[in-house]
Amino acid sequence: MANLNNPLDNIAIVLIRPQFAGNIGSVSRAMKNTGLSRLILVSPGQDQLSPEARMMATSAKDLLEKAEVYPNQGEALAGFRWIAGTSARKGRNRGPFISPREICPEIIAHARSIPVAILFGREDKGLTNEELAPCHALISIPTHRALPSLNLAQAVMVLSYELHLANLQSQTEGPTGTGLLPKLAEFQRVESMYAHLEELLLRIGFLDSQNPKRIMHALRRIFGRASLSDRDVAILRGIFRQLEWYATHHPEEKKEE
Amino acid sequence: MANLNNPLDNIAIVLIRPQFAGNIGSVSRAMKNTGLSRLILVSPGQDQLSPEARMMATSAKDLLEKAEVYPNQGEALAGFRWIAGTSARKGRNRGPFISPREICPEIIAHARSIPVAILFGREDKGLTNEELAPCHALISIPTHRALPSLNLAQAVMVLSYELHLANLQSQTEGPTGTGLLPKLAEFQRVESMYAHLEELLLRIGFLDSQNPKRIMHALRRIFGRASLSDRDVAILRGIFRQLEWYATHHPEEKKEE
Repeated sequence: MANLNNPLDNIAIVLIRPQFAGNIGSVSRAMKNTGLSRLILVSPGQDQLSPEARMMATSAKDLLEKAEVYPNQGEALAGFRWIAGTSARKGRNRGPFISPREICPEIIAHARSIPVAILFGREDKGLTNEELAPCHALISIPTHRALPSLNLAQAVMVLSYELHLANLQSQTEGPTGTGLLPKLAEFQRVESMYAHLEELLLRIGFLDSQNPKRIMHALRRIFGRASLSDRDVAILRGIFRQLEWYATHHPEEKKEE
Repeated sequence: MANLNNPLDNIAIVLIRPQFAGNIGSVSRAMKNTGLSRLILVSPGQDQLSPEARMMATSAKDLLEKAEVYPNQGEALAGFRWIAGTSARKGRNRGPFISPREICPEIIAHARSIPVAILFGREDKGLTNEELAPCHALISIPTHRALPSLNLAQAVMVLSYELHLANLQSQTEGPTGTGLLPKLAEFQRVESMYAHLEELLLRIGFLDSQNPKRIMHALRRIFGRASLSDRDVAILRGIFRQLEWYATHHPEEKKEE
């Protein structure tokens, strides 16, 4: 999958539950305008091959035809090793957010060796906290307070434009940081680790069993930013297993303390 | 007209003969997303207040309602002192082109003291050479060769996004170059100067009277980049008058040489 010559081939634009075929068409045009080609759709509300989608795509109909469609986000993200989510809603439990200009050189560097996915949410509500959960980075496009919400295709345009420029820049300056890039862990490995962690934290009573999501969300943000490698995940799961063993075998000691 | 506190208020997005109301609506949304508010339409093909335009504008309907509509470019540009045109077609007689990232800090600096217009052409063909003629700068958005032509609203989005970022940047760093900014000459003064120059060059036989446009186009590009001030225009017209006087009074001497 990795094409070391062109990092843009290694970046997928993932639309989560897009509602309007016209937007899907406009997204494909914006992608082709900027050299991107891999479009993934999760549970689209309208057919990406409809006349309206084709009309808005103009000469980017090939992207619509080879778009990958999945019923849910988990299946769509299998195989990806670095994932970013976009959001205009900077809620209390969200962030920290990074701008496209800051993150795109890093995305290009990652995409030289691993498959990268960038998530965009549905037109009316964006991405939910659950959909943002697997992300290593949260991207927010700087906008004016009078109207912060961008049209879906416009948001993809800005991100794709910044990726295109970052790619051109890296061609001029030569790749940066590729040698230092950790071997980022694959999506499902990381998800298994989070499931393991949640189970553990529930068991040891650290998480409020009524609402474990809030703490898990914060932990995901921390580990997400840390860009875990396979080795990191192996180490963390080793720690989790050790903690489980301890929690199971030493309940008495703990109570006595 | 000039609001020294916010240069974005001094920048007009001018759509030359836009064909589709949906695009006009999308443009107004992209403008409001990035803090721009002055929309000018030259001979639009569809009504900017139509249901489709309003739908695409979402919460930017106010921009549609206060949009200024003119029958031709000349009337639309009266009063502007610095004008940029956008184009994806880098023809032989066009250019040099500058990227949005390079030019937007300069546009923000200009807009602190003078009204600025940025022109976008119709969806299918962009701006003609004649429409680009009054421009001080030609802007081209970097795109991939596979599909260089951006949707009209997408092109406005990228430009507006860069203006927004350049404005934020200038707020952090403080205004740059404002003190050095020449008092750029008003559009119609500059157009009168070109008319004068063309008449002169035709009279002295420098221009091929069959096709004077080609040379005039090149001269416009040179003077356009020079960003003429009122004083510059006065000096040039003084020179033109002097040359006219010479051409009228010394025909014999010239032939003898």
